[in-house]
Amino acid sequence: MHPLKPVLAVNFKAYHPHSFGVYALNIAKAAVKVRDEFRDVEIILAPPFTELYRVIRELEGVDVKVFAQHADPLEPGAITGYIPLEGLKELGVHGVILNHSEHKLRLSDIFYLIRKARRLELEVLICADEPEIGASVAVLEPDMIAVEPPELIGTGISVSRAKPEVITRSVELISRVNQRVKILTGAGISTGEDVYTAIKLGTVGVLVASAIVKAKDPYTVMREMALSAIKAFEETHKSTN
Amino acid sequence: MHPLKPVLAVNFKAYHPHSFGVYALNIAKAAVKVRDEFRDVEIILAPPFTELYRVIRELEGVDVKVFAQHADPLEPGAITGYIPLEGLKELGVHGVILNHSEHKLRLSDIFYLIRKARRLELEVLICADEPEIGASVAVLEPDMIAVEPPELIGTGISVSRAKPEVITRSVELISRVNQRVKILTGAGISTGEDVYTAIKLGTVGVLVASAIVKAKDPYTVMREMALSAIKAFEETHKSTN
Amino acid sequence: MHPLKPVLAVNFKAYHPHSFGVYALNIAKAAVKVRDEFRDVEIILAPPFTELYRVIRELEGVDVKVFAQHADPLEPGAITGYIPLEGLKELGVHGVILNHSEHKLRLSDIFYLIRKARRLELEVLICADEPEIGASVAVLEPDMIAVEPPELIGTGISVSRAKPEVITRSVELISRVNQRVKILTGAGISTGEDVYTAIKLGTVGVLVASAIVKAKDPYTVMREMALSAIKAFEETHKSTN
Amino acid sequence: MHPLKPVLAVNFKAYHPHSFGVYALNIAKAAVKVRDEFRDVEIILAPPFTELYRVIRELEGVDVKVFAQHADPLEPGAITGYIPLEGLKELGVHGVILNHSEHKLRLSDIFYLIRKARRLELEVLICADEPEIGASVAVLEPDMIAVEPPELIGTGISVSRAKPEVITRSVELISRVNQRVKILTGAGISTGEDVYTAIKLGTVGVLVASAIVKAKDPYTVMREMALSAIKAFEETHKSTN
Repeated sequence: MHPLKPVLAVNFKAYHPHSFGVYALNIAKAAVKVRDEFRDVEIILAPPFTELYRVIRELEGVDVKVFAQHADPLEPGAITGYIPLEGLKELGVHGVILNHSEHKLRLSDIFYLIRKARRLELEVLICADEPEIGASVAVLEPDMIAVEPPELIGTGISVSRAKPEVITRSVELISRVNQRVKILTGAGISTGEDVYTAIKLGTVGVLVASAIVKAKDPYTVMREMALSAIKAFEETHKSTN
Repeated sequence: MHPLKPVLAVNFKAYHPHSFGVYALNIAKAAVKVRDEFRDVEIILAPPFTELYRVIRELEGVDVKVFAQHADPLEPGAITGYIPLEGLKELGVHGVILNHSEHKLRLSDIFYLIRKARRLELEVLICADEPEIGASVAVLEPDMIAVEPPELIGTGISVSRAKPEVITRSVELISRVNQRVKILTGAGISTGEDVYTAIKLGTVGVLVASAIVKAKDPYTVMREMALSAIKAFEETHKSTN
Repeated sequence: MHPLKPVLAVNFKAYHPHSFGVYALNIAKAAVKVRDEFRDVEIILAPPFTELYRVIRELEGVDVKVFAQHADPLEPGAITGYIPLEGLKELGVHGVILNHSEHKLRLSDIFYLIRKARRLELEVLICADEPEIGASVAVLEPDMIAVEPPELIGTGISVSRAKPEVITRSVELISRVNQRVKILTGAGISTGEDVYTAIKLGTVGVLVASAIVKAKDPYTVMREMALSAIKAFEETHKSTN
Repeated sequence: MHPLKPVLAVNFKAYHPHSFGVYALNIAKAAVKVRDEFRDVEIILAPPFTELYRVIRELEGVDVKVFAQHADPLEPGAITGYIPLEGLKELGVHGVILNHSEHKLRLSDIFYLIRKARRLELEVLICADEPEIGASVAVLEPDMIAVEPPELIGTGISVSRAKPEVITRSVELISRVNQRVKILTGAGISTGEDVYTAIKLGTVGVLVASAIVKAKDPYTVMREMALSAIKAFEETHKSTN
C-alpha cells in the first residue's frame, strides 16, 4: 500500500450564491460524508476568505483539509482589507492556494509566500497555467502544483481529455527539477472519468471547482470523483510496485 | 434632539495577533459593553474578512454595525481569492470601507462599488487622503467619507491636533458638492480629546484603528472616545439648534 | 468669434504597426497638413511613449500639441521602466492623457498627477467612463475631460449617435462642479458627423483613435473631422452669442 | 580566446535629469568611446522608453546594444499608455529588461514575454531578487539573469563585496537547471573592483545604474568597469582553458 493518497481539491471560487453561506456549508457536509465512506483520498476544500471560519468549524474533528484561495504577500500590521498568512494560520486553515490563473502573483511574491507558509506550517498549492510555469515554480518547492490551462477553466472540457499532453509534459518538466512536489490536474474537470484520466496521466489528483460547487448535489459528484481517484491511484501504484 | 448620532468606526486592520481570533472577539465584546452604556453613538467595527463571521455572530441582536475593510470590484463567479460585495451581503455585514490609503482603488472601481452597494443596501465609507479627494468622491454619493492624511496614520498624532485645517477644509470642499454625506476624521486618533476636537471641527465622528485595536484594554479607550463623541456632538448640535 | 477652438485629440494607442514608426510619423504629417488648412481647430496627438520624440521633432514649429498617453504616478529616481511626468516634460510634450479606460488609475494617483502636471505646466486630459466619474474628476480641476463609455470604444458606433444622453448628462453633471474644464466626447467617433454631433451636444471636441490611426489615409479622416468640428463649433457659439 | 565577452549593462532608471535628454545622450556617447577603446566587452544601455529612439540613433553603426527597461505583457492593439514588445522591436531595440525589483512581474507574464521576445528575436534580461528566484526564472530560458538583492540597490555597497554568497549560491542554483543562461551581478555595483569581483565569483558581468548614470563623468566610470571586466574575464577563462 502506497502511503500517499490521491488528492481531490475543491476551489469554491466566489459563485453566488453557491460559494457562500449555507451553500458553502453544504459542500463541507458533502465532504464529511465522502470522507466517512472513503479513507484513501485526501480532500481539500477552499472556500472564500469570509466562509473559512464556518467551514473549518463544520469540519472540526474530520480529516478534511481547509485551504484559503489566496493570501496577500504582506506582513501583518497596518494593512487594511488584506489577509496575511498569519491571519489564516490563526483561523486554523491547513494551507493556501496561490497564483490561481484568476489571481496571479508576481514571482517574488510567490516565493515570499511559500517561504513564510513553510515557517507557519501551512501547505501551499500553486497553480500554473502551463507546464513551463509549473516547472518554474517547482524550483521554489511548494507542496503541490496544479496545472490548469486557463482556456479550459469553467468549460466543462477537462484538460485530461482535451489536452492530455499538457499534463504529461507538466509531469515531465516538473519532475526534472523537483521530484517531491505533488502534481494536480486542473481546468474543466467535470466527471469521475476526468479524475481517473488525470491520475493515469501521472498526477496525484485534481483541482476542481464548478463541477462540484455549482452541482445540484455536490455530494454525488464528489463521491464519484473520490471513487475514480482511488481506483486510478490503486491501479497506477499497483503497477509501479 | 438631533436624530443623527456621532460615529465611532474601528478599523481592525491586520495586526497580529490583535486583529484576529480571540483578540477580534474581545474588541467586539468591548463594543457591546460601550453600546450598553451609551445609546447616542453609532459604533462600526471593521475586522478582517476572515473574522467577519465570528464578529457578526458575537454582535447578534446588538446595535453595532459590522463593515468589511474592503470589497473587490468584481462580479461574483469564477474568481478565486476575491470577495465581491454579494459575498459580504450574504454574510450579514452592514457596510464596507473602500479606498483606505492602505488599499487604494481606481476611481471607476470606487463608483462601481458604491453603486452596487446601494443596490445591495450596504453602507459605504470611503477614505480620502486629502480634502480634494474627499470632495471628488463626494460627487459619487457614498454614505460616509473619512479624511485621513496618510502621513499621520498610525503615528498617534491626530489629524485634529496636527492639521485641523485639513479637516475644516475637507468639510468645506465636500459640503460644496454634497451636503448629505457624513464626514469622519481619521489618522492618528488616539484619545477622547482627539475625538472631541474632530467633531468640534465639523465632522460627525472618527475612523480609528491602532489606538483601540492594539490597546491593552480596548473597552476603556472605546468608552472614553464614545463619551467625548457624545459630548462634542451635543455641544455642536445644541449650538446649531 | 469665440476665443476657444474645438478640439480634435488623437489617441494612437498601440496598434501594430499603425501606431509606431513611419505610421506614427504619417499621422503627424497628416496633422501638419490639416493644421495648414485650418487654424480654428486645436489638434492633439498622443503617440506611444516610444514614439513621442520622433513625433515631437516632426511637429517642430507647427501648432499641434503632443500628449503622452499616460504617466506613471511616481517621483523620478530609482524607478525602472516607468515614465514620470518630469521625463515627459523634458521631452517636450504639452500634456498627458490620464485614466483612459484601458489604463485606469487610482483616484489619489489622478490627483497627484493633475497637481504635478500643473506645476510642470503640462495639460491634463482625464478620461471618464461615465458622467458621474467625469463630475468626480472635474472636482480635481484637470484641463479636459473626455467622456468615453468603454463599451463603445473601438466599435465604430459613436457615443454621440448611440448614447447622446451620456454626453448631455456628462455636460450637465460636470458643469455643476466645474465650469472651466473642457469636455470632450470619446468612444466610437468614426466620421465628421460624429464630431459634429458631439459638439452640438455641448462638448468642445472629440477624443478619437482607430478611425484615424487605422485609416488608410489618416489625413482625409482628420480633415473631415476638423471641418465638421469647426462647422459645429461656429454654429454653436454663434447661436449662444 | 573565449567567444563570450563580459557584459556591462547600464540601467538608466528614471533619475531626473540624469536619465533624460542630453544626459541620456551623454551616457550613450560615453559608451561609444568605451566601445572604441575596448572590443572585448559587451555594452548594453537601457534608457527610459521615451529616450530609446534618441539613444538608438546616437548609437547607429556602433556595436552597443540598447535594451528597454520593461515591456508590458500585452498584445498590441487597443491599449493606451502601454508598450508591447512589438513596439520596441519596431523601434530597433536589441532586448528588454524584465522583472526589475522596481517593476516586478507576475510569473506568467514573465513567461509570456520571454516567449514572445524569442519570437521577435529580442534578448531578455530577467532580474531576480534572490538566488532561488534566479533559478526559478532560469527554467523559462531567458538570455540573461541579473541577481540583485534589492536591499543593496542604490546603496553603493556592492553585492559582490557585501554578500558574495548570494552570487555564488545564485550561480550554483541557476546552473543546476540551466547552463546556457548568462548570469549578471547587480545591486550596488560602484567601482571597477566590484565588477572584477562579480566576474571572479562566477558571473559574466554586471547590471549597474546610479554609479554610471549619476556620475559626473559617466565615461570614466564606464571605462574603469570595462577594463576590470575584461581583466577578470581573461583571468577566469584563461584558468579554465
